[in-house]
Amino acid sequence: MSIQILLEFDLMVVATKNGIYAPSSPRENMCLKLNMILTQYVDTLSQRMKYHIGYPTNMHYEHHAILAPLLQFSLNNCGYPFTQSPVDFHSKDFEVAVLDWFAQLWEIDKDEYWGYITSGELHSSGILYASKDSHYSIFKAARLYRMELETINTLVNGEIDYEDLRSKLLVNKNKPAIININIGTTFKGAIDDRDFVIQTLENCGYSNNRYYIHCDAALFGLILPFIRHAKKITLKKPIGSISISGHKFLGCPMPCGIQITRKSYVSSLSKIEYINSTDATISGSRNGLTPIFLWYCLSTEGHARLQQDSKICIENARYLKDRLLEAGISAMLNEFSITVVFERPCDHKFIRRWNLCYLRGMAHVVVMPGITRETIDSFFKDLMQERNKWYQDAKALPPCLADDFGTQNCMCSDNKMHN
Amino acid sequence: MSIQILLEFDLMVVATKNGIYAPSSPRENMCLKLNMILTQYVDTLSQRMKYHIGYPTNMHYEHHAILAPLLQFSLNNCGYPFTQSPVDFHSKDFEVAVLDWFAQLWEIDKDEYWGYITSGELHSSGILYASKDSHYSIFKAARLYRMELETINTLVNGEIDYEDLRSKLLVNKNKPAIININIGTTFKGAIDDRDFVIQTLENCGYSNNRYYIHCDAALFGLILPFIRHAKKITLKKPIGSISISGHKFLGCPMPCGIQITRKSYVSSLSKIEYINSTDATISGSRNGLTPIFLWYCLSTEGHARLQQDSKICIENARYLKDRLLEAGISAMLNEFSITVVFERPCDHKFIRRWNLCYLRGMAHVVVMPGITRETIDSFFKDLMQERNKWYQDAKALPPCLADDFGTQNCMCSDNKMHN
Repeated sequence: MSIQILLEFDLMVVATKNGIYAPSSPRENMCLKLNMILTQYVDTLSQRMKYHIGYPTNMHYEHHAILAPLLQFSLNNCGYPFTQSPVDFHSKDFEVAVLDWFAQLWEIDKDEYWGYITSGELHSSGILYASKDSHYSIFKAARLYRMELETINTLVNGEIDYEDLRSKLLVNKNKPAIININIGTTFKGAIDDRDFVIQTLENCGYSNNRYYIHCDAALFGLILPFIRHAKKITLKKPIGSISISGHKFLGCPMPCGIQITRKSYVSSLSKIEYINSTDATISGSRNGLTPIFLWYCLSTEGHARLQQDSKICIENARYLKDRLLEAGISAMLNEFSITVVFERPCDHKFIRRWNLCYLRGMAHVVVMPGITRETIDSFFKDLMQERNKWYQDAKALPPCLADDFGTQNCMCSDNKMHN
Repeated sequence: MSIQILLEFDLMVVATKNGIYAPSSPRENMCLKLNMILTQYVDTLSQRMKYHIGYPTNMHYEHHAILAPLLQFSLNNCGYPFTQSPVDFHSKDFEVAVLDWFAQLWEIDKDEYWGYITSGELHSSGILYASKDSHYSIFKAARLYRMELETINTLVNGEIDYEDLRSKLLVNKNKPAIININIGTTFKGAIDDRDFVIQTLENCGYSNNRYYIHCDAALFGLILPFIRHAKKITLKKPIGSISISGHKFLGCPMPCGIQITRKSYVSSLSKIEYINSTDATISGSRNGLTPIFLWYCLSTEGHARLQQDSKICIENARYLKDRLLEAGISAMLNEFSITVVFERPCDHKFIRRWNLCYLRGMAHVVVMPGITRETIDSFFKDLMQERNKWYQDAKALPPCLADDFGTQNCMCSDNKMHN
């Protein structure tokens, strides 16, 4: 595919590089060729859909045909979502509708929140505390914005190590604390305990105006609110901001994020000296299509679909984890999580076929909406078949994953004896 | 429009806020309503197209229907464009094809450049020198990344004031200089002289490894290379990077930018101590649709269309400027520019109708592809009619714009006498 795209394209460039349009074939021919490339690309992607189980992107939405006419326009939501735009080609009304939806979900009044739809970033001064299992963009942001950073250890399941957080908070008591809380870590799908973090801050003597909590709820932010018994994500607690991804659990053809914070932080910057967000939005120009996709998705399906998807995904994730453990394959699944972590497959072709994401001795499947039991079974069957080959001669043994999964979830020969 | 969107949406939220899906109308009804809103929105935008003359967005492309099927997928070009992606749902082959095109345009070898397609930012340490007419995102970036900033004055036409630059460079000789050069300023469409800036740096004693030049060619980067007698934008000169916007002159339904720099800056960071771009891309996730839109646009039309569009736009801009001056309205147009700056209309309704962008006593029209003589004439006619009302009783007089446009372009009563 890659070679073909470049070739076709180079032909065209060669034909026109003297600034004179002298195509080797008529324009229609060129268009036909390009359309062929595109059709082939779309076909390949369509076929690969059912192998897309390693990354959290929901592509089982159906609004693309209805929303396609919007591609005629270049919609740019420049600046604040709430101020009237001086131009026509924006979708701020849709953006505000989506933000209102999330404000309601996260229990903050319409006139008390501020937010926007973007690719989502964090910017503050003070010391940033983030667990080592946080998304890499947190560490990148810290570097880019030249923030002081304290990396906190994690527990076996991927949650922040509250004891390590406590001791580092105590050492740095002279400076305000900005805490990144993960609501679903990238790799293990672990959920940090908001209440416990808040209590730790208070026990360490941080008053309310000396700390700021950001919740990175990229994937799980649209799962937890719809699960009975799961702890709410709510701005009634002393949380400064919440961000989620739009292209993950909800589904959107372009990467995007929703960011909600308290209006008081934005309008009266001087009051909170450690929120250095002097500018409201980080990128000036913002994609105007994404709010409409999100709006349409939430409007047509909303709570009902999210509730159903969350339930099914969690059930399917448990199903996969159980099958793996029963087959003697080390695996782990956090409570309320859809990310099944398991022993990393030996064969790179297998990893590539199933779009698996891996880290050290682990790999994971994110059981997203649209990943059916059939897909899971087909993956499981493929894994079992291949795995028999990897370990058939006992030349190699499956790795011990007790440190990463806990002994109860490690099925290596040493641990099996004890279990 | 805005109220209706919110209303429809709120109805749905109310119906489902208890987490139980209890719609007041069946699902099909809801979809019909949403589609009505969308149709109305698309209609409004379509009607407003011919009034979109104040901002540089080209919406006269025709690839939207062909590329619409891509909306089925969530394409994410995460990380480097040049490394193979571990997943299927990306468009890096298209991205690299587009980058290659620009590398060729800006005269840098395939294996010597590095770049990516994104919303585009700048990140460095050292002192940043930018003229006060630079795009606001430059100043925002400087604040976000906590860079030292020297703002340089501009000449009457919007070009950087080389004398002011020289004196500020001399004061700060102990620190490396990062210079933002505008190839088309946002408001006046002024083009800084690259050679003169480079010469100034050398005259001030800055050696090649003590300065870094970034060219912000957002709009004009796809005009100048296609105009005979215009100075080339070329990386054969000691320029560090060039960025342009994809949604402006070329046209793309989403805001995007192309950024090209020298590979040596990215691969051997330690050598150039003032390029602190420790991470390759600034945002991790990048929209995978935009490269395909750009690729399609360049492939089907490429040099030929850009050459034709540039020529027509510059001619049409001159036509508008001449009509304004002949009618006694202060106006200015830089050489090779498509941005006609003129006396700011008094009536806000008029400004809003024509999507005009204004600053102090000035407004501008950006004569983009698709803005025809008919549109220009219709705008001019409307302006003349309205303007007669604004100044009919001689209660108010048109403002003097000699400071902003130069006396030869100012048509206020004082200057008229001298001209």
